[in-house]
Amino acid sequence: MEAIRARIAGRSLAPGDRLPSIRRFAETMAVSPSTVVEAYDRLAAEGLIRARPGSGFYVSGAALPPLSFAVDPSLHDRAVDPFWVSRQSLEAPPEALKPGCGWLPADWMPTEALRKAMRAVARADDALLTDYGGVLGSRALRRILLGRLATEGLQLGQDQVLLTASGTHAVDLTCRYLLRPGDTVVVDDPCYFNFRALLRAHQVQVVGVPYTPTGSDVERFEAVLKHASPRLYLTNAGLQNPTGAGIAPQTAHRLLNLAAAHDLTIIEDDLFADLEPEPTTRLAALDGLNRVIRIGSFSKTLSASLRCGYIAARVDRISDLADLQVATGFVGASPVAAEAIAHVLAGGGYRKHLDEVHRRLARKRREVIARLRSIGVEPWIEPRGGFNLWCRLPGEIDSAELACAALKEDIVLAPGDVFSPSQTASRFMRINVTHCDDPRLMSFLRLSLSG
Amino acid sequence: MEAIRARIAGRSLAPGDRLPSIRRFAETMAVSPSTVVEAYDRLAAEGLIRARPGSGFYVSGAALPPLSFAVDPSLHDRAVDPFWVSRQSLEAPPEALKPGCGWLPADWMPTEALRKAMRAVARADDALLTDYGGVLGSRALRRILLGRLATEGLQLGQDQVLLTASGTHAVDLTCRYLLRPGDTVVVDDPCYFNFRALLRAHQVQVVGVPYTPTGSDVERFEAVLKHASPRLYLTNAGLQNPTGAGIAPQTAHRLLNLAAAHDLTIIEDDLFADLEPEPTTRLAALDGLNRVIRIGSFSKTLSASLRCGYIAARVDRISDLADLQVATGFVGASPVAAEAIAHVLAGGGYRKHLDEVHRRLARKRREVIARLRSIGVEPWIEPRGGFNLWCRLPGEIDSAELACAALKEDIVLAPGDVFSPSQTASRFMRINVTHCDDPRLMSFLRLSLSG
Repeated sequence: MEAIRARIAGRSLAPGDRLPSIRRFAETMAVSPSTVVEAYDRLAAEGLIRARPGSGFYVSGAALPPLSFAVDPSLHDRAVDPFWVSRQSLEAPPEALKPGCGWLPADWMPTEALRKAMRAVARADDALLTDYGGVLGSRALRRILLGRLATEGLQLGQDQVLLTASGTHAVDLTCRYLLRPGDTVVVDDPCYFNFRALLRAHQVQVVGVPYTPTGSDVERFEAVLKHASPRLYLTNAGLQNPTGAGIAPQTAHRLLNLAAAHDLTIIEDDLFADLEPEPTTRLAALDGLNRVIRIGSFSKTLSASLRCGYIAARVDRISDLADLQVATGFVGASPVAAEAIAHVLAGGGYRKHLDEVHRRLARKRREVIARLRSIGVEPWIEPRGGFNLWCRLPGEIDSAELACAALKEDIVLAPGDVFSPSQTASRFMRINVTHCDDPRLMSFLRLSLSG
Repeated sequence: MEAIRARIAGRSLAPGDRLPSIRRFAETMAVSPSTVVEAYDRLAAEGLIRARPGSGFYVSGAALPPLSFAVDPSLHDRAVDPFWVSRQSLEAPPEALKPGCGWLPADWMPTEALRKAMRAVARADDALLTDYGGVLGSRALRRILLGRLATEGLQLGQDQVLLTASGTHAVDLTCRYLLRPGDTVVVDDPCYFNFRALLRAHQVQVVGVPYTPTGSDVERFEAVLKHASPRLYLTNAGLQNPTGAGIAPQTAHRLLNLAAAHDLTIIEDDLFADLEPEPTTRLAALDGLNRVIRIGSFSKTLSASLRCGYIAARVDRISDLADLQVATGFVGASPVAAEAIAHVLAGGGYRKHLDEVHRRLARKRREVIARLRSIGVEPWIEPRGGFNLWCRLPGEIDSAELACAALKEDIVLAPGDVFSPSQTASRFMRINVTHCDDPRLMSFLRLSLSG
């Protein structure tokens, strides 16, 4: 393959030229004809050459542009909006530091269990490897989810869980089902920046309610219900993003009563569930999925590469959501991916993996908090779990400006205002403690914050 | 019965629990008490519950019912709308016949190559198994796609291809980007039924233009452009669904000129590309992706389980679509799935697999056409490739009625009107020739059509 590529690159083979016959080229290269057939087939698969039946192979004239790691140069000039952190984190070159990103490094994930799961899937029935699967998604994974939900006190039927293409997709699908352009949606202030990007795509009004260390500010929440008549409240369960705080039982109880009084639907996105060392209050469990729709995924503790999310809700809602997913994606999660996830979850090692992750996270949070305090950066709270710290910068430093300066040093930060619907978090920053080991980060921060 | 079963399956009713009283449950379900008595008696006969005279019904402690293949009974009563064929095909029990479905049987797919690809992925870097990957998706797969597109005459840059969660998702994402509620969209009449379901989700007006054996009826197309000012034309390339016809070069040229004169954008969904034995005219290739957006997937000839689609378009559009995908799904295709697909496509065996599929399909089409003609069912055309036949039923038979009768015999048909925006195809039916081997099908059709 390299020999042919070189000839094309050096123009000794031009577009339209016939390649050497398989027999002749095999003699030239001193390899077997079947090796040449394989090489030609692969080059044809790449589009570099083309087979003309009964005639041979020809140079196709399609130069292959190399795909580089280079960040789109225009990315550096992008406005620091709710898309900014996602794009910068996802597009960062391998050597970049990403304390602004929202996931664990690869070496924190259960890679051996994943490899085992992939090998198990490679041995599965033909149908699993080739077919769409059912409308609701993998039975094996749904069965495991029903068991996990039951331990939280949610006794659900098999038609109450729908697998989706991702956790974000689950939120999107549910919003599409519930919302119409112009509706009002309540979010936490601060909230996960991608909720803001997503709701923008739905063309709805977004109202933020201040998030406190014990959950949403209930008085402000009630005032918004009275004056803005929102249709939906979109929030995180357990470890709120970005604060790492959670909802206290009394806040949860009062919120649900307010929701009932104002006919408000709630989406509780529980994507950080497995990062919580001790389970805490869930709106879904209190409400029994009457007006709460529970969403989750496996991206934060198992694999973000095996795209899969889920929705747990009332039967009537799941049926409608399944129709909507058929119309807009045909089926949701890849059956292969869902089966691999089920394989990992069903294995005994996953619980041990989580225990280890919790221990490492607790240690990292302590370490990073101490280092941040030494340079005047103060966490808003010390979270019970997870990898996010919501931090106040010292003095009058603007975190968006800091993030732009950091990007020039290949450091991706998550500045506060991308999380804030009211744009009142410019002195804050979200820091992922698992991406803080490289000394370049603290050097950069120390230098910038003391300037 | 289903409600009680669900509660027991979901463990909201545990062994030993008393069931709701007949009167109360009748109220809950809004049915008569005698219906509940009947349901309880049947469940008792199955052993799932037990009657204690003078006390009521109790859960008997029998083993939890497995998640079954059983079609949701309410599915049988669903209206024959654009969702009908998808839901029935996806939910059909394994023993059902599915000549109405839109995919090849598992034993037509390259399963050995897929197993090899999964094993290769199991050996990949940790990051591939655990991370989100980039915004645009797997570099390996995009490189192969650029090569394939180049052989069609589309010389694209690396920023012009975006991987998505599926082909359907690619269409949906593009529609979301281009359309606003109330816009008008042109489709073929007949067209793929799920286009109708998808456009319904976008709350747009749908106008059908008759599809002829050489593509859209250009005079009617022009009239629609003049009177309805559509924003978008959504169509299939190559082998149109359901007809199997394709666009002739002159039709394509005239359509593109009309599109330019009326500032119309075109989505060309090329999902059947690899089922075409000889490549034919593509709007995308003629237009050079100026006003055409090209979409494709790997579901029909490689695997529908590895969910992955793609969009090829102008750089500015891909950048916007990538943002929209981040907001609504974070990343699109599973990196693991995309890598496995790239592995199969790059292997020399995929071309041989396609050659074999083309040969088998040609044989099947001939066989099935002969059998259908013997019972008075006439294909509209004899397609050049693919597995779909668009067929006229004899006499005054209504295909939706036929499909409902067939479902009772576990046969899923695709009645004509689900494909027809104008509801003028009630005498037609789409038949997938690869799902016609079981003699039960021809027996059923012979009997029903002669009646």
